[in-house]
Amino acid sequence: MSPISQKNFHTANPEEATAIDRSIPEFAAAQVSDEDDYFANHKPPSYLPEIKQELEEFVSYHKETTGKRIALVTSGGTTVPLENNTVRFIDNFSAGTRGATSAEYFLENGYAVIFLHREFSLLPYSRHYSHSTNCFLDYMTESNGKIEIDPKFSDAMLQVYRKYKQAQDSSSLLLIPYTTVNQYLYTLKLISEELKVYGSKAVFYLAAAVSDFFIPESRMPQHKIQSSATQNGELSIHLAQVPKFLSRLVDNWSSGAMIISFKLETDNNLLLKKARSALERYHHQLVIGNLLQTRKKEVVFVSSDKEDHWIRLTDEELKNGKMIESEMIPAVIKLHDEWIKKAKI
Amino acid sequence: MSPISQKNFHTANPEEATAIDRSIPEFAAAQVSDEDDYFANHKPPSYLPEIKQELEEFVSYHKETTGKRIALVTSGGTTVPLENNTVRFIDNFSAGTRGATSAEYFLENGYAVIFLHREFSLLPYSRHYSHSTNCFLDYMTESNGKIEIDPKFSDAMLQVYRKYKQAQDSSSLLLIPYTTVNQYLYTLKLISEELKVYGSKAVFYLAAAVSDFFIPESRMPQHKIQSSATQNGELSIHLAQVPKFLSRLVDNWSSGAMIISFKLETDNNLLLKKARSALERYHHQLVIGNLLQTRKKEVVFVSSDKEDHWIRLTDEELKNGKMIESEMIPAVIKLHDEWIKKAKI
Repeated sequence: MSPISQKNFHTANPEEATAIDRSIPEFAAAQVSDEDDYFANHKPPSYLPEIKQELEEFVSYHKETTGKRIALVTSGGTTVPLENNTVRFIDNFSAGTRGATSAEYFLENGYAVIFLHREFSLLPYSRHYSHSTNCFLDYMTESNGKIEIDPKFSDAMLQVYRKYKQAQDSSSLLLIPYTTVNQYLYTLKLISEELKVYGSKAVFYLAAAVSDFFIPESRMPQHKIQSSATQNGELSIHLAQVPKFLSRLVDNWSSGAMIISFKLETDNNLLLKKARSALERYHHQLVIGNLLQTRKKEVVFVSSDKEDHWIRLTDEELKNGKMIESEMIPAVIKLHDEWIKKAKI
Repeated sequence: MSPISQKNFHTANPEEATAIDRSIPEFAAAQVSDEDDYFANHKPPSYLPEIKQELEEFVSYHKETTGKRIALVTSGGTTVPLENNTVRFIDNFSAGTRGATSAEYFLENGYAVIFLHREFSLLPYSRHYSHSTNCFLDYMTESNGKIEIDPKFSDAMLQVYRKYKQAQDSSSLLLIPYTTVNQYLYTLKLISEELKVYGSKAVFYLAAAVSDFFIPESRMPQHKIQSSATQNGELSIHLAQVPKFLSRLVDNWSSGAMIISFKLETDNNLLLKKARSALERYHHQLVIGNLLQTRKKEVVFVSSDKEDHWIRLTDEELKNGKMIESEMIPAVIKLHDEWIKKAKI
């Protein structure tokens, strides 16, 4: 309702870092869990068997009945709880626009989509309405004692509704939510294993903003941190690195799938360098690089066997509501075509 | 769509705290800003003048035209950015259910409501649909080539819609969003000052989950923290205490309003003690205490001149969808009646 909520409220400040102390050597060595240690020392979410069953049904349905390719799209930020009874957590910024929009274009291009998303982040199709600054009820009106969609919005909404229904009726969209980084990692591992039977016809489109740091379960306070318990009013939080699960995903969990990761930076000078080093480290197929500031306008495809390829929207296209994912996904699918062909040789 | 998303995904672990080091003395003294220092050292959000104007119109309309009392309801968590170009932030858990539901009961009891809320948290009325595990489009259906509300939902939705429209048409609900703790503090201060003219007919119902700790602007890194820049893979974050603004609110910002704060704990043994000490420290009128685990089922009213008063729902009432706010708000209003009478003497 308020026009101001469309603005970016985050203030900018050019001063440089002093709050983050990168030199504290405590908790070192033993705390830097590698990927296997991580799963040995952290409990899986209790609902995982249910998801496993849903996945099995989804994958075998498409393998045996529709023959559709499957895209796993991950979307939204992950949280790192700072307490066991979680009041406070560290979060990564992500509304989930990239993931939700990309999922729509995969669906429209004939893919089945597993949408592994942060709970309450944007969903394919409903994204057009759910996080708008309009209240849900602003799309409604009352007429002759009945509630109905305001005619101003009904034509556009019908188009979105039909696409949503089609995805639903064809069982092409499987929604799987997560909240914490632990839930994300366990579920990603499970999905990768379930998709092994899909080989090269699966594509992993890892658009979620996954935390780099977390508090290991063994160090987690049980109750809310009391501010009175701090000394001099300061609180120091020591975080360990989240293991680089991508190498396990490429080497062990999945089998033959095309794997695409994202690299989000805020510093233009680092973007291409970081994208390339991720590619060299994990030997996967594609890194899509983007800057936080311009992520809706331009992205760069970085792969080991092709020149860097920028996809850009003009200001005119942006103004007309064109989404960059409408160009990204067809480009991804072209690469997936080649990947499948190569796998058959 | 997925049934699992209704569950609480946070895993529990009985082990005790070691990750939070409360003894590090660095950054002490000068960093514990007091309330005035805070505003001197942190920039106000740029959109504040716009909000000031909306507030002035709202307050003077109700003062001069409707004569309604005004409730300021704050709702949702606040974020503490860890970087200036914000990718990561610390967040407080809060969907905003308490605030959004309370606002509805204030409105239905004849109050005008200023709803200062975390952007994208639950809003009065639309809360019934927006954060459900159902997609927005699951409430729709197509009939004769037209999109309409599914008859299964239309009666209930019409009731909600009418209440929403009434709040809107009578200009009784002003929505003001925030994201960061800095935006929250500046906006709260502004609203308090604008409500001074309202005297005892204003009530502050401070249900937002405000961070206790933050990173002062002067220590904030400009760009995304690079995991490669950490030593031994560990990251340490040093946070300062958010100044206890409540004393300023009671003593300076507001004038004669009834002020209610909330105390959310996870440890039952601390709840009443912490609620009482807040009351003694800030000399305001009421602390509503609640435990994270049972907050939808029971709350306790703690005030200096009355016995502690518990409000509890039975399991039966909970099962039937009764909201505890439907009992809390009438109890608050009774106290507000007394407050206004006392102010007139």
